[in-house]
Amino acid sequence: MQLRIPGPTPIPEDVLRTQSRQMVDHRGKEFSTLLQNTTARLKQIFQTKNDIFLLTGSGTGGMEAAVVNTLSPGDRVLSVSIGSFGNRFAGIAEQFGASVERLQFEWGTPADPDAVRRALAKDSAFKAVLFTHNETSTGVTNDLASLARVAREAGVLILVDAISSLGSIDLPVDKWGCDVVVTASQKGWMAPPGIAMASVSEKAWAAHAKAKMPRFYWDFAKAKSFVEKGQTPWTPAVSTAYALDLATEKMLAEGMNNIFARHARVGKVARDGAKALGLALFAAEAYASNTVTAVKGAEGMDVKKLVRTLREEHQVYIAAGQDKLEEKIFRIGHLGWVTEDDIREVLSAIKVVLPGVGFKG
Amino acid sequence: MQLRIPGPTPIPEDVLRTQSRQMVDHRGKEFSTLLQNTTARLKQIFQTKNDIFLLTGSGTGGMEAAVVNTLSPGDRVLSVSIGSFGNRFAGIAEQFGASVERLQFEWGTPADPDAVRRALAKDSAFKAVLFTHNETSTGVTNDLASLARVAREAGVLILVDAISSLGSIDLPVDKWGCDVVVTASQKGWMAPPGIAMASVSEKAWAAHAKAKMPRFYWDFAKAKSFVEKGQTPWTPAVSTAYALDLATEKMLAEGMNNIFARHARVGKVARDGAKALGLALFAAEAYASNTVTAVKGAEGMDVKKLVRTLREEHQVYIAAGQDKLEEKIFRIGHLGWVTEDDIREVLSAIKVVLPGVGFKG
Repeated sequence: MQLRIPGPTPIPEDVLRTQSRQMVDHRGKEFSTLLQNTTARLKQIFQTKNDIFLLTGSGTGGMEAAVVNTLSPGDRVLSVSIGSFGNRFAGIAEQFGASVERLQFEWGTPADPDAVRRALAKDSAFKAVLFTHNETSTGVTNDLASLARVAREAGVLILVDAISSLGSIDLPVDKWGCDVVVTASQKGWMAPPGIAMASVSEKAWAAHAKAKMPRFYWDFAKAKSFVEKGQTPWTPAVSTAYALDLATEKMLAEGMNNIFARHARVGKVARDGAKALGLALFAAEAYASNTVTAVKGAEGMDVKKLVRTLREEHQVYIAAGQDKLEEKIFRIGHLGWVTEDDIREVLSAIKVVLPGVGFKG
Repeated sequence: MQLRIPGPTPIPEDVLRTQSRQMVDHRGKEFSTLLQNTTARLKQIFQTKNDIFLLTGSGTGGMEAAVVNTLSPGDRVLSVSIGSFGNRFAGIAEQFGASVERLQFEWGTPADPDAVRRALAKDSAFKAVLFTHNETSTGVTNDLASLARVAREAGVLILVDAISSLGSIDLPVDKWGCDVVVTASQKGWMAPPGIAMASVSEKAWAAHAKAKMPRFYWDFAKAKSFVEKGQTPWTPAVSTAYALDLATEKMLAEGMNNIFARHARVGKVARDGAKALGLALFAAEAYASNTVTAVKGAEGMDVKKLVRTLREEHQVYIAAGQDKLEEKIFRIGHLGWVTEDDIREVLSAIKVVLPGVGFKG
């Protein structure tokens, strides 16, 4: 079986097993030690001295937390979107009453830092910018270093959806000055879904003090008041925390630079392999993601049949496109617990299936 | 080891183990079958034909969902509180802009339906009432049948925190006409924390259509648009869903009436045992909860030392009081996977420890 959707991702055997440990008191010493250890490791992986909170929820909950903790209704926000998840981030901010300006780039391309600079210059009232580090729907990794520089120069708060990048692709949170950065346990973290993680800078705390969007469950201040004693304000996802604890230990044992290099190698195998099959990449190659590869369906090809046949006949799970790309692309996830050989297996299965789904390449 | 806090609760071995199954595609057939099976069982346990949604989050997230899906800022809401969790429910509604009238009853006592009737009669603008079925902080179970009847007569929406009751204490959702009822996986459900469950009545949907509180992650409409195909809008807590799937199967195999009777027997063992030790119950006995027993610390007794010593010397985990009761009571959780013998073990350990913590009974 090859589960190669862009999350949930496969989990190593020892991480799977550790979930089966019995419950403990979430306000007792054993759990607080675990939470403190995990948080310390997360700070290394996020490359930050900022606070980091574990939030029981999906990644989208983490995105909502980033918005409601830092903004007030009516605040001017620049959404920089290169795909479906960028649009979701904008939608959350709008839903909570922000005045969102949507700067959209063609799907498959990255955001242009100069265009972001020009957009920010048009309105001095912008308080925050929303970036997607890695756009899972199109397989594009933004040049977040440059985007964040432009945003810092404009003095706006930088909120980052790094759900499908952090832990797999280099993202030095402090060096790039990102204020709230969100990721989720089922992506590069080799753990099951259920925990979102968010880092919160000093500047984000200053914004929090003035932010008037309603918040209770996601309130960073409540999380902060518990984190120092190794607790969360609400009952945490204990089994998932067991998994994340061991998975982060394994990540640091492998070494973050080794993990980034492995993802780069695996991403190249996916891209080269797709091209060798006669298929075209959806993403501009210089910005193609090392965690998810989006491949164009060729003329006459039934992409949904490809995805279905791979599942039914080869136990290979990849994803179709999202939203307007649903029938136009397919996506291979390669983040977390993944090797070159895993992706070679996926490519071999695709090669077998292609002739039966209208591919004439 | 006896983990007898009021959640997380101990998990049976087979439920623990099932969490270790590998991830699957959360939008694939295997997971959709699981979600549909679990939801069908939940409808039996909730005794409802209403929609039921699994929300990735803690119970408090489910409470927030109940509020933001049905109310608008400025709406008049009657909070009926008998303890810490009742106050939390009111706090969530206030945080999102409701105009909350707080009807508070002495901690340790249940809500008086006549007082609720009088409070509701004072203002025809009340749109909703917030009830706690079982107040975990005081060990009191409200007479929800009578409270709900009063609320139905007043025509208000009935939002119920049933986090520590549903699945352990009878709560026929449709018969009592409760509009949104929330519970959480780590309580009577014998599963780890990470999934909140909420039932949503037709009347709640009508309220949802007009409700203007901002919502995105918790939006029932988004959940509804995915539930029919056996999916959730955001990535669900897959391992926790594995656990809940098996746990609900086990619950129906035991039979809900048997489970309610077992909790009643276990609750009686806890109450009789505490009294036999010379201690007094905190809750009015006619309303004492069958899922958590609150016991008063006697004159001169160090409750926190009792709790600590039980942990350190007997591996028996019970909870101290919350908020203003922190040093005044201790609480024994007995919900989910629990037998009379488990509680007898807890009582035996308490008996051993009592003389060393200032108890002169």
